[in-house]
Amino acid sequence: MRILHTYSEQLLRGPSAAAFALRFIVCVSLFCYAMLGQSSPTTDSGLDDRTVSEAKALRDDALTGTKAFQWVEDLTTEVGPRLAGSDSEASARAWAVEALKEFGFHRVWVESFPLPGWERGLETGYVVSPYPQPLTLTSLGGSVATPDEGVEGDLVIFTSLQALESAVPGSLDGKIAYVGHAMRSTQNGSHYGYFGRLRREGASIAASKGAKALLIRSIGTDSHRMPHTGAMTYSPDQPKIAAAALSNPDADQIERMAARGKVPRVKLLLTPRFLGEVTSGNVIADIRGAVAPEQIVIIGGHLDSWDLGTGAIDDGAGVGITMEVARRILSSGKRPRRTIRLILWGAEEVGLLGGRAYLESRKQELKNHVIGTESDFGAGQIWQVTSRVDDRARPLIDLISQLVEPLGVAPGPADVASSGPDLTPLVSAGMPAFRFVQDGRDYFDLHHTPDDTLDKISPQDLDQNVAAYLVFAWLAANTALDDWGWLPSE
Amino acid sequence: MRILHTYSEQLLRGPSAAAFALRFIVCVSLFCYAMLGQSSPTTDSGLDDRTVSEAKALRDDALTGTKAFQWVEDLTTEVGPRLAGSDSEASARAWAVEALKEFGFHRVWVESFPLPGWERGLETGYVVSPYPQPLTLTSLGGSVATPDEGVEGDLVIFTSLQALESAVPGSLDGKIAYVGHAMRSTQNGSHYGYFGRLRREGASIAASKGAKALLIRSIGTDSHRMPHTGAMTYSPDQPKIAAAALSNPDADQIERMAARGKVPRVKLLLTPRFLGEVTSGNVIADIRGAVAPEQIVIIGGHLDSWDLGTGAIDDGAGVGITMEVARRILSSGKRPRRTIRLILWGAEEVGLLGGRAYLESRKQELKNHVIGTESDFGAGQIWQVTSRVDDRARPLIDLISQLVEPLGVAPGPADVASSGPDLTPLVSAGMPAFRFVQDGRDYFDLHHTPDDTLDKISPQDLDQNVAAYLVFAWLAANTALDDWGWLPSE
Repeated sequence: MRILHTYSEQLLRGPSAAAFALRFIVCVSLFCYAMLGQSSPTTDSGLDDRTVSEAKALRDDALTGTKAFQWVEDLTTEVGPRLAGSDSEASARAWAVEALKEFGFHRVWVESFPLPGWERGLETGYVVSPYPQPLTLTSLGGSVATPDEGVEGDLVIFTSLQALESAVPGSLDGKIAYVGHAMRSTQNGSHYGYFGRLRREGASIAASKGAKALLIRSIGTDSHRMPHTGAMTYSPDQPKIAAAALSNPDADQIERMAARGKVPRVKLLLTPRFLGEVTSGNVIADIRGAVAPEQIVIIGGHLDSWDLGTGAIDDGAGVGITMEVARRILSSGKRPRRTIRLILWGAEEVGLLGGRAYLESRKQELKNHVIGTESDFGAGQIWQVTSRVDDRARPLIDLISQLVEPLGVAPGPADVASSGPDLTPLVSAGMPAFRFVQDGRDYFDLHHTPDDTLDKISPQDLDQNVAAYLVFAWLAANTALDDWGWLPSE
Repeated sequence: MRILHTYSEQLLRGPSAAAFALRFIVCVSLFCYAMLGQSSPTTDSGLDDRTVSEAKALRDDALTGTKAFQWVEDLTTEVGPRLAGSDSEASARAWAVEALKEFGFHRVWVESFPLPGWERGLETGYVVSPYPQPLTLTSLGGSVATPDEGVEGDLVIFTSLQALESAVPGSLDGKIAYVGHAMRSTQNGSHYGYFGRLRREGASIAASKGAKALLIRSIGTDSHRMPHTGAMTYSPDQPKIAAAALSNPDADQIERMAARGKVPRVKLLLTPRFLGEVTSGNVIADIRGAVAPEQIVIIGGHLDSWDLGTGAIDDGAGVGITMEVARRILSSGKRPRRTIRLILWGAEEVGLLGGRAYLESRKQELKNHVIGTESDFGAGQIWQVTSRVDDRARPLIDLISQLVEPLGVAPGPADVASSGPDLTPLVSAGMPAFRFVQDGRDYFDLHHTPDDTLDKISPQDLDQNVAAYLVFAWLAANTALDDWGWLPSE
């Protein structure tokens, strides 16, 4: 194909109009001949064989070993935990900018935005009676502090958020609400959205019943003394009460005490602080498109992490994978047709603030974002492709799926509206959505805990991810389909 | 066999001397006849078929489900952590005495002894430079505190205790020694003895080189943010420096920093306290022997635990297994020939103090302890029998091995000198040693960490242990071999 393509280019460069007609006929013939040698998905996807071959070569080369793990190691070692808005998150941006500048991007920059700061303090808890002993717990992200002397009360035990919601207002006056749940490990992580509501909204629901604090079983699937933190918010119409998560073994212990017909009485001391306005930012790096630079394909992960671990799987992995994808495209020396934009998002954990800030600043150019995706589900291998695109882009998605199939990835739902958390604002506005689904069976064993550290990551698994994202990025950025059509906004 | 045995007993009870001679001949004949029907190990082991059948029945019944897990659950829930010499350890003794009195022992009592008290305080550590971040660590048991303002210094990295020992005296002046190691998970736990020396003796070795604190990689095999505590001692001729263990992921992080050619500088604040003299005790309960009550077979586990977890595998499991063994023998209604003594040892973790106190108080009656064993290697299934006994007792050990073989237990070395930690003083004095070896491949993942909790235990695995210990206890307490001979003391 490369020879035919070159020859037809030469013909079209000829000078005279008569010659042009002849050349046109030859060209069309050559084109038809060439097309006969191409498979139909390639045609409909707007991609030629050369580009497909390039994607395959990028894919296969990644499987021989990439630097993705190295970037995760560098970030988690040299920066460590990087809470949204903290000095450490700023160090992570500086680290990323320095690393990316060496990759040869056309442009690397930071887009800052403000956010309300919060930081963890002391956090202790113990059972006062009937069986005095310490508890392992952690403040939920965004929780208020307990009073200086702590808060002590009898627990009222609920086994689900629904049970708490059914409690009579006033029935928890002077008590501390404890809520368990039955979250399980699933391959696609789907229990998190459902059970996670307890963490996100539980405090105000408990407050509406009169509770003076909320203690939950961690939204996590491990059996270690590792409490899971994570974002929570307060309803404006309820008193703000302190909220903390027990590790699963501690939650078991509380439930065992209750099963003996005893009322566990606990004392909690939590001293998180609100810091006023602080700064986060998105680190953005462009591989500028050669033909349609204004059109943008987004890849990336988020730079911030929770403070308890070093943010290796959440989301050092996504950062490392997508940095390596961009680095490999840059070092191939080939320019894509449209712009590939790597975004290392800031302040994802505390409310997708990087994604919201990005959308806010691009209201006039939204539809230049032809498609995007984020890697933010740990370090496991990809096993599924999901998407939500206009029919015109379906052959492109099919071709991507076809090319990642040798990596052990199968096509999944073609009507899901996710591109990863930080792209939610863009996808909600109508941007076509694409996501590689990773195997997350152990994700909620580690997510938001002190245990989110580098040793949990297999370099080979990251390489498989890099291979798949290379296929996505190279094909999406090179297809000749120029208008895929945004979807109706949600 | 039961009929023959009863008949020969009646003959021997007859009154006259003439009749005695006749009866003697009949008896010998009956005995010889009986012996022909018995396998030779049964004969040499001093056990009759009835006793062997009873042992098999006790064994098989245990496999249908025991209360061993229930005792562990009660202890770890109602008492929780129970550091040697603490109020919690006293609560554990009270709990045990109350539970054991309901089992129907002939006598249940506590033998108290004094020990120097120690308790954990705050423990924080962080990397000051080159990559500032917090560390997860814990004080070693018995460590002195750091100065009030903490201790800060550059780390000198050693990858083994041997490397530290080779350091030039004075070379660590003003520094903090960091020592890693290469401990692995093994089925029999054998790496603990070797690598554990770093924890036990490292501080004074580091001090002898001038170090102002010691930081070690935990003596453990997990990959969680779980530092392992455990006992350490100081040499009288060295300055006492504070000593702490990093979790394995934190130790990895320190080693990664060092591998980048940087000198990690850390600050530690540890505030453990010495409490003066406190009290511990052994809880002892006897099933008095019907024939030779002065002869004692010991079983048991240790009641104290480290303070970080709830002491489920170390050693709630051993307590629960051996309590259940005694309870089942008591509820069988059968009296053993000699006394079965259940000892729930105190203050094992801080230097086998219960075992030492027991020996100290029985100097005059040591040799009444015909054999003993302790369950203190977690909650895994038993896979091997080990022993060190006089040749006269070998057939007894062989018969025990034969009866536990259906449980998946094979004979192991017949020349090892362990009966478990608290029996070390007795075994060192010459008591025959016996030990069931449990599968400890995950033992050092949990041992001495916050993660030592009930959820790590399988009730079925405990039942297998109970079945094996029933065989040991019933046969050792009923054999007609009366003098097995102590071994030369060590």
